[in-house]
Amino acid sequence: MKDRIKQLISQLTLEEKAGLCSGLDFWHTKGVERLGIPSIMLTDGPHGLRKQKGDSDHLGIMDSVPSTCFPSGAGLACSWDRDLIRKVGEALGVECQAEDVGILLGPAANIKRSPLCGRNFEYFSEDPYLSTEMAANHIAGVQSQGVGTSLKHYAVNNQEHRRMSVDAVVDERTLREIYLSSFEGAVKQAQPWTVMCAYNKVNGEYCSENKYLLNDILKEEWGLEGFVVSDWGAVDERVPGLLAGLELEMPSSNGAGDRKIVEAVRNGSMSEDIVDQAVERILTIVFRAAENKKTVTFNQEEHHQLAREAARESMVLLKNERRILPLSKDATICVIGAFAQQPRYQGGGSSRIKPMKLDNIYEELAKKVSGQALMSFAKGYNLEDDEIDEQLVKEAVEAAGKSQVTVIFAGLPDRYESEAYDRGHLRIPDNQMQLIDAIAEVQQHIVVVLSNGAPIEMPWIDKVQGVLEGYLGGQALGGAIADLLFGDANPCGKLAETFPQKLSHNPSYLNFPGEGDTVEYSEGLFVGYRYYDKKEIEPLFPFGHGLSYTTFEYTDLKLNRQAMLDTDQLQVSLKVKNAGDVAGKEIVQLYVRDVESTVSKAFKELKGFSKIALQPGEEKTVRFILDKRAFAYYNTDIRDWHVESGDYEIMIGQSAAEIRLKETVQIQSTVLIRRTYTRNTTIGDLMADPYTADIVKQFLRGFKGNPLFSAANDEGTSEMFAAILKFMPLRAAAAFSQGAFTEEMLNHMVERLNGTGSDM
Amino acid sequence: MKDRIKQLISQLTLEEKAGLCSGLDFWHTKGVERLGIPSIMLTDGPHGLRKQKGDSDHLGIMDSVPSTCFPSGAGLACSWDRDLIRKVGEALGVECQAEDVGILLGPAANIKRSPLCGRNFEYFSEDPYLSTEMAANHIAGVQSQGVGTSLKHYAVNNQEHRRMSVDAVVDERTLREIYLSSFEGAVKQAQPWTVMCAYNKVNGEYCSENKYLLNDILKEEWGLEGFVVSDWGAVDERVPGLLAGLELEMPSSNGAGDRKIVEAVRNGSMSEDIVDQAVERILTIVFRAAENKKTVTFNQEEHHQLAREAARESMVLLKNERRILPLSKDATICVIGAFAQQPRYQGGGSSRIKPMKLDNIYEELAKKVSGQALMSFAKGYNLEDDEIDEQLVKEAVEAAGKSQVTVIFAGLPDRYESEAYDRGHLRIPDNQMQLIDAIAEVQQHIVVVLSNGAPIEMPWIDKVQGVLEGYLGGQALGGAIADLLFGDANPCGKLAETFPQKLSHNPSYLNFPGEGDTVEYSEGLFVGYRYYDKKEIEPLFPFGHGLSYTTFEYTDLKLNRQAMLDTDQLQVSLKVKNAGDVAGKEIVQLYVRDVESTVSKAFKELKGFSKIALQPGEEKTVRFILDKRAFAYYNTDIRDWHVESGDYEIMIGQSAAEIRLKETVQIQSTVLIRRTYTRNTTIGDLMADPYTADIVKQFLRGFKGNPLFSAANDEGTSEMFAAILKFMPLRAAAAFSQGAFTEEMLNHMVERLNGTGSDM
Repeated sequence: MKDRIKQLISQLTLEEKAGLCSGLDFWHTKGVERLGIPSIMLTDGPHGLRKQKGDSDHLGIMDSVPSTCFPSGAGLACSWDRDLIRKVGEALGVECQAEDVGILLGPAANIKRSPLCGRNFEYFSEDPYLSTEMAANHIAGVQSQGVGTSLKHYAVNNQEHRRMSVDAVVDERTLREIYLSSFEGAVKQAQPWTVMCAYNKVNGEYCSENKYLLNDILKEEWGLEGFVVSDWGAVDERVPGLLAGLELEMPSSNGAGDRKIVEAVRNGSMSEDIVDQAVERILTIVFRAAENKKTVTFNQEEHHQLAREAARESMVLLKNERRILPLSKDATICVIGAFAQQPRYQGGGSSRIKPMKLDNIYEELAKKVSGQALMSFAKGYNLEDDEIDEQLVKEAVEAAGKSQVTVIFAGLPDRYESEAYDRGHLRIPDNQMQLIDAIAEVQQHIVVVLSNGAPIEMPWIDKVQGVLEGYLGGQALGGAIADLLFGDANPCGKLAETFPQKLSHNPSYLNFPGEGDTVEYSEGLFVGYRYYDKKEIEPLFPFGHGLSYTTFEYTDLKLNRQAMLDTDQLQVSLKVKNAGDVAGKEIVQLYVRDVESTVSKAFKELKGFSKIALQPGEEKTVRFILDKRAFAYYNTDIRDWHVESGDYEIMIGQSAAEIRLKETVQIQSTVLIRRTYTRNTTIGDLMADPYTADIVKQFLRGFKGNPLFSAANDEGTSEMFAAILKFMPLRAAAAFSQGAFTEEMLNHMVERLNGTGSDM
Repeated sequence: MKDRIKQLISQLTLEEKAGLCSGLDFWHTKGVERLGIPSIMLTDGPHGLRKQKGDSDHLGIMDSVPSTCFPSGAGLACSWDRDLIRKVGEALGVECQAEDVGILLGPAANIKRSPLCGRNFEYFSEDPYLSTEMAANHIAGVQSQGVGTSLKHYAVNNQEHRRMSVDAVVDERTLREIYLSSFEGAVKQAQPWTVMCAYNKVNGEYCSENKYLLNDILKEEWGLEGFVVSDWGAVDERVPGLLAGLELEMPSSNGAGDRKIVEAVRNGSMSEDIVDQAVERILTIVFRAAENKKTVTFNQEEHHQLAREAARESMVLLKNERRILPLSKDATICVIGAFAQQPRYQGGGSSRIKPMKLDNIYEELAKKVSGQALMSFAKGYNLEDDEIDEQLVKEAVEAAGKSQVTVIFAGLPDRYESEAYDRGHLRIPDNQMQLIDAIAEVQQHIVVVLSNGAPIEMPWIDKVQGVLEGYLGGQALGGAIADLLFGDANPCGKLAETFPQKLSHNPSYLNFPGEGDTVEYSEGLFVGYRYYDKKEIEPLFPFGHGLSYTTFEYTDLKLNRQAMLDTDQLQVSLKVKNAGDVAGKEIVQLYVRDVESTVSKAFKELKGFSKIALQPGEEKTVRFILDKRAFAYYNTDIRDWHVESGDYEIMIGQSAAEIRLKETVQIQSTVLIRRTYTRNTTIGDLMADPYTADIVKQFLRGFKGNPLFSAANDEGTSEMFAAILKFMPLRAAAAFSQGAFTEEMLNHMVERLNGTGSDM
């Protein structure tokens, strides 16, 4: 195939090749009929298939053909279930084949920097490891069906505010460890056929023109084999984009981009090789899609049941005081809230699909109870606006007062969350807040079920006994909620993001969404739990939190060694037992803590997780293997991942806030980092390294009589005097020596420290 | 004099002129005998005079002649009393004259970025306005006596860790609004004879070589007439330093710096004019000092009483539950803590002076009570280490149990706080913490009196009824504490800095003290209360907090206008009444809040304060005048202070957390800021400005049929669609237009927007 593509390229005119570097229309690549080059379709995702009907509108966001609506990424990630995500991916792949779609645009692996980001419901997590594991398995699932994916939005696209012009300014370590890391594992593990570059700039350059991101890192460092496609409309200037590694512009620029490419080649400002390489990457994928095309059918109900399973595995039981859940099927239950009849199950924007079918939550709940008469419903609020409807509140309060338990459906209406704009606060509408308060006056047994794509503030949390976080649960959310509320399934999701007590506590708060077209990522590495941990700010619900109807016991944490080289692997095992009386699943989380570091670090970082199913009384051994990367930070001096020698704690947690077991391993680095010494190197730094300390001591012996230098070796020196010397650069020591330590000697010494000078 | 100096310069050889640019020794400038140029002495301060005895040691930190030890800067600032600071300055000036000192090194106006900074006890505040007012009055006081000052450490010297090599990386707005602002008012109001450049780098350049800081801002923008002196040993390379505006190197470099200057002039790499200008600035001050020299004597006891007054005005009553204070002179009182006999009254390092005399706190307390038998003492802990001495604790507990009220003296021992190193945590020693806990077991009437130069954590706060923050109170601290505890004086200090609940809550926590030789000021503008306000993190004690034995009522806030131009002045008045039955002083704080801003801002900022004395029942009117600067932020585009048009709230507070009155004024900017438009300007930005909106609308009319553009004017457009358009750059609109909006038209439109093109 590689040869055939090369041969085809040689037969293409420059204009044809330039043409292949942009779309035919909104959704298709160009074909070249005379050479048998097919056109393939790319279509929005990722939690379902959004293939537009007939003619596309100008922003490509209108009506589409029906497809299965799975929970959106924010929910799916709370399953922490690699196999489940893969199964969902497979189902999506099948639906693509059935609709003749070559590439499904997704998954979306951006980090949740702020809970305000309008598109967070599409994203997985605030943690790059969890995010990349979810993305890799989504990709593997879709691509196993011969359908391509487009890992998006690469990179540092963490807000909708000014998304097409904003410059995300982020330091190199944070870029590598947080924002790129969320993509890196997915590319390396799963080789997405395409990667979609984001709208925004990163450190001054549009992602669509960012050679560092597209060519240097994505392709050369990580080894992406496929091509880069622009987010729709992300191209600024086409030629710099192509030079930076953006192969395919979407949608069609109506020839404008193609003409610029041809002109650049003709006037010699760009080599034709660049175009050839781009076309080769594009055609490799286009032919792969064409060759994998097959006619398939699928059972819609089976996909609906998978959507229900996915929703069940994703929902998170946040609070369950006095075991209000599961509900008895014989209790009188009052169901309140418009969402129970008009569910919010997906977000707005390009990912919005037309579901095959859609559960009515109230009806699904009603199926569970022993008699219909036990259940009542009150709407409570309108979804169209935030106005308090006193009549609806009154009816709801009356109904709630007569019930044994009240389930309130609340959350964010559609208009609150969408692609294209961010939220301004974390509150649910006033009419819902007031409703909860009013019901709490008459009813103490309240369960709140939430529909929302991202965290909300819960000033009412102490007034309710149970909270089930449903996220945006997809078309089968109703069945899943019914299964969970009545205990036919045991909640097993855990939060993939921190719920803060207040928006202002979020790490990005002081710099979100930025000023004008600049947003500074000043919180650096301290995103999500990395921040709450370090700042000792208690969140409403911590990262990794999720309750179950059973309890789990953690024991027997073992490491296969106490000391190792950074090139070794560490095997970790522990036992987890279901100590309750119902079957359940547990998400075991492994965090690594660098006990002492010369660089700024989070208190701990997630480096492994495993979801296991346990029958009552059953115990299983959970195993992890950790390699260098699990202990490494990105060292910007050596431009590589680096492990500092020292102790590392392996922490096993039920959540980021509940560490159950820990053990320590000592790691020895195999990498020697060379330092350069100057006249401004401090005496303390030189004394800290045995090699340079020898040189300094040898030198100091020559100044025995000098009070400054003799103090350096004096045990009785005061703490202050010692600190003065420690932080003193060589040149200042020379200045304070009253002429004893001359400029010439100083230069000589620096040379010697750098290994170029002779002995003094 | 100017002419005489110019004439002298013309008579000096190049070597002599170069020589004048560095010290004679550790403490003196060079003289030139043949021309009658005198040598003057510079000596450490600033809360007293530290003139070294006889030969100086190599770091200049040994024994010195006695002088009056006033409270250090951290305490003085809590007086919020301009007149008092000036009086202290006058006394310092007199003592300098008596000791033949020409320039007293201080005041120190650095911002308290982290409570850990080892030198915070010398600094005034976390707020630049309060800091600059204190510094200006200190300078004015000293200089009124014909003695010079050296405003230090310029600039952004906010930590001791790696102080001689660290690079403080701070954005321009933060630099201007926080770190430089703390110096700016002092320079402009009080013209210090010298300014001392700091050890560290700012944004990549040593302060001693930083032309932007020394020449451009300090001299050209702010108009400093005197010269810049290096902090002792702060010179890196002498010639770049001189070129940048560092006139005097201290201490003597033993001719090394002088030789480099001569060589640079000889080889033509530096103009001799630069040397002449430096010498002119130095000699202007040297002659001023010489001419103002006079023989004075002073009354040591009067200075001691001034030190006592200063201490009384500075101490802050943090907590006074159930009015445990003032103490009855007839109660049985147990005094506990080594500090009561061995007071901590100043910090370590170059500012440490030898006091004329020193109060014993216990003895001062004993003088107040009606009979000596009423008072007992127990040491409680040793100061030398943190070890718990069970015997001392036992004795203390026994003594406390027998008393009606127990006063515990606690705080930071000398070894905890000093120039040259920072603290690593905010705890007081374990032996003191454990002592407080033990005493609280037997005694509920506890008052803690603190001696410390900077905030501490108080995990024991709920176990005690009263807390008096004494800071480092100087030689007369004992008398002052006695006056306050027994109600012979009414506490009237207020915190000049926030006390956090935990160190981790401090804004700089994630980036202090930096990595290697870089410290990023990532918290930006949000220093001190600016951070706690905005992040809604409750501090232990807020900025501006301080209790009194009386209460004050705030009424009648009036503004002299409701609307004004940014060039107008606003007059603010309010009434404050002493509603209690003892005389007292109140510190009235004025904060300004920008109600809506396009740039990132603190919730509110201190822009005025006034300390007033009121007899019981007395009411006074307090007046403030606010000008442009009180409402302005530093606009980095126009490189000037700028007031955005809009509403501003004038908030009158008893502390940053207790706002008593507020009123709103509307301000209209008189400054037009020109914008430049590009192909990447968004449609939303263009529509927001009536002038450009017209051009866009006119243009859109040409595309009536096009669905993209018609949507822009459609009232019924969804929120999402509206947001997509709002954030869409012009070039993306062109891309989505399917060829209707061509590249040529785009270029044309941008030209037109910038006013250079013709109508389309």
